[in-house]
Amino acid sequence: MKQRIHIFAPATVANVSCGFDALGLALDSKGDEMIFTKRDDSKLIINTIEGADLPLDIDKNLVGTVSKAMLRASNLNFGFDIEIYKGFKPGSGLGSSAASAAGTAFAINELLGNPFTKTELVKFAMLGEEAACGSQIADNVSAVIYGGFVLIRSYNPLEIVSLPVPNDLYITALHPQIEIKTEDARNVLPKEIPLKKAITQWSNVGGLISGLYTSDYGLISRSLQDVVVEPVRKSLIPHFDSVKKVAVQSGALGAGISGAGPTIFALSKGSVIADKVMKEMESLYAKTGIDFNIFNSKISPQGVKIID
Amino acid sequence: MKQRIHIFAPATVANVSCGFDALGLALDSKGDEMIFTKRDDSKLIINTIEGADLPLDIDKNLVGTVSKAMLRASNLNFGFDIEIYKGFKPGSGLGSSAASAAGTAFAINELLGNPFTKTELVKFAMLGEEAACGSQIADNVSAVIYGGFVLIRSYNPLEIVSLPVPNDLYITALHPQIEIKTEDARNVLPKEIPLKKAITQWSNVGGLISGLYTSDYGLISRSLQDVVVEPVRKSLIPHFDSVKKVAVQSGALGAGISGAGPTIFALSKGSVIADKVMKEMESLYAKTGIDFNIFNSKISPQGVKIID
Repeated sequence: MKQRIHIFAPATVANVSCGFDALGLALDSKGDEMIFTKRDDSKLIINTIEGADLPLDIDKNLVGTVSKAMLRASNLNFGFDIEIYKGFKPGSGLGSSAASAAGTAFAINELLGNPFTKTELVKFAMLGEEAACGSQIADNVSAVIYGGFVLIRSYNPLEIVSLPVPNDLYITALHPQIEIKTEDARNVLPKEIPLKKAITQWSNVGGLISGLYTSDYGLISRSLQDVVVEPVRKSLIPHFDSVKKVAVQSGALGAGISGAGPTIFALSKGSVIADKVMKEMESLYAKTGIDFNIFNSKISPQGVKIID
Repeated sequence: MKQRIHIFAPATVANVSCGFDALGLALDSKGDEMIFTKRDDSKLIINTIEGADLPLDIDKNLVGTVSKAMLRASNLNFGFDIEIYKGFKPGSGLGSSAASAAGTAFAINELLGNPFTKTELVKFAMLGEEAACGSQIADNVSAVIYGGFVLIRSYNPLEIVSLPVPNDLYITALHPQIEIKTEDARNVLPKEIPLKKAITQWSNVGGLISGLYTSDYGLISRSLQDVVVEPVRKSLIPHFDSVKKVAVQSGALGAGISGAGPTIFALSKGSVIADKVMKEMESLYAKTGIDFNIFNSKISPQGVKIID
């Protein structure tokens, strides 16, 4: 049995326009690294956190929540030394807590000899999401664990469906360095929505998923519409409409809010278009005076993975 | 160019549980036949209607609405003798008006040498639906024109997506001989629905469509849930819950309301289970004292077709 594991846990985009609380996808080129080393005693110790200001105290870090739940469920009483190297910032809308939570679940499962199924790993990671965000959301952590595009078909019982990823799909992510309070992102959500809008939304979810199965980029593009959440959340993100417009004008298949924001994502077919989309989004946002970072990534078919 | 065409226009199931106003499917073994024969003059004459009490007056029959619109759009001024042989009853929830409307659009297009696309045929047929039901609904007529399983991705612009049909999928349809007024079926619909239910619904739409692409009957079964419309419409259909329960207990993947009802449909994997499901549904409904008919059918991959 392995004594030490070094993993990569990807950033993720949840919601993906029409698929609010139902769809997620994993990025290839952005994420955290974590190293777990077995200890002879039963202690859980976070030795290092780089790249973000997060608590080293195991009782205050979601990594502790997930680790403890897994050790309890396995009836094991050894511990780990844990190193966390954040590759992207918390509060971005790119699933920072999900990367830590699902990365932990994956790494510990490997060190225990893989006793848990992927669905069980998602459930452990959801405990971490709850510790960090107050609710057991599954879309980001599922994308980390399963990779590619995922659909949360049901929460109770939990069922994750892996969707195919067309080869040529690229993500551009622009992260404005502003803070959106989780409370604000939640408070703008309507409790009730018109049936008509709901029908539009589920027709688009159907179209998007059909487009993924058939690699029909036109259908994917036409389906990337959110008539329910984006209209109320976009006001929390400065210059959202202009960024989306310039992305689509530059050839993106669509654009939207990543998770609860503030990151704005665009999907493009092929790296040439994705590069152009990134350049135009960057050039527009550079004029706003708001700090931001931006990057392109393929979708990771694999999700979380072992580096060493 | 053909002078006469004899076609079969299938019955259809719209909504299909979670896919309210978005999904439809065409049946193989139930439908109408229609014969269109070119006339030398420009008259449109319905010579025969068998199987239902519908107006022979071309100005009062939706077949006239569709025919006239197509001839006008083609700038042609010849006419047709029309014979209509209804294979199932209007008001069943199995798309009786859709079969007539889409059958007319298909037949006339053939006699004109196929000038129109499938989407255009759906649009002509929607005019017939409007004449019959008061609104331009697309799910039934699209299933007739495209065959198989269809998704109405968008109404404006109209976009129909053909979905794959797993080989072993069978439909059981039980039609209680009661009348549901369109007005009643509409009035029970909520104008607004909780966001939570909408999310459940679009997650199930996603699951159902994914199941169709992967022939995953378990996923199809788990996704055949309607938390929005069935709960409010089922009270219009006597013994709905018992029929659904017995269908599922007999092995059906799921059951629901066909269109606006009163027909109850069940989906099953394979003819052996479908036969058992039909037998149990039949035996239950025979005890209710309500007249009904019941049949099994495969899904028609083709939809409307030429007999002669």
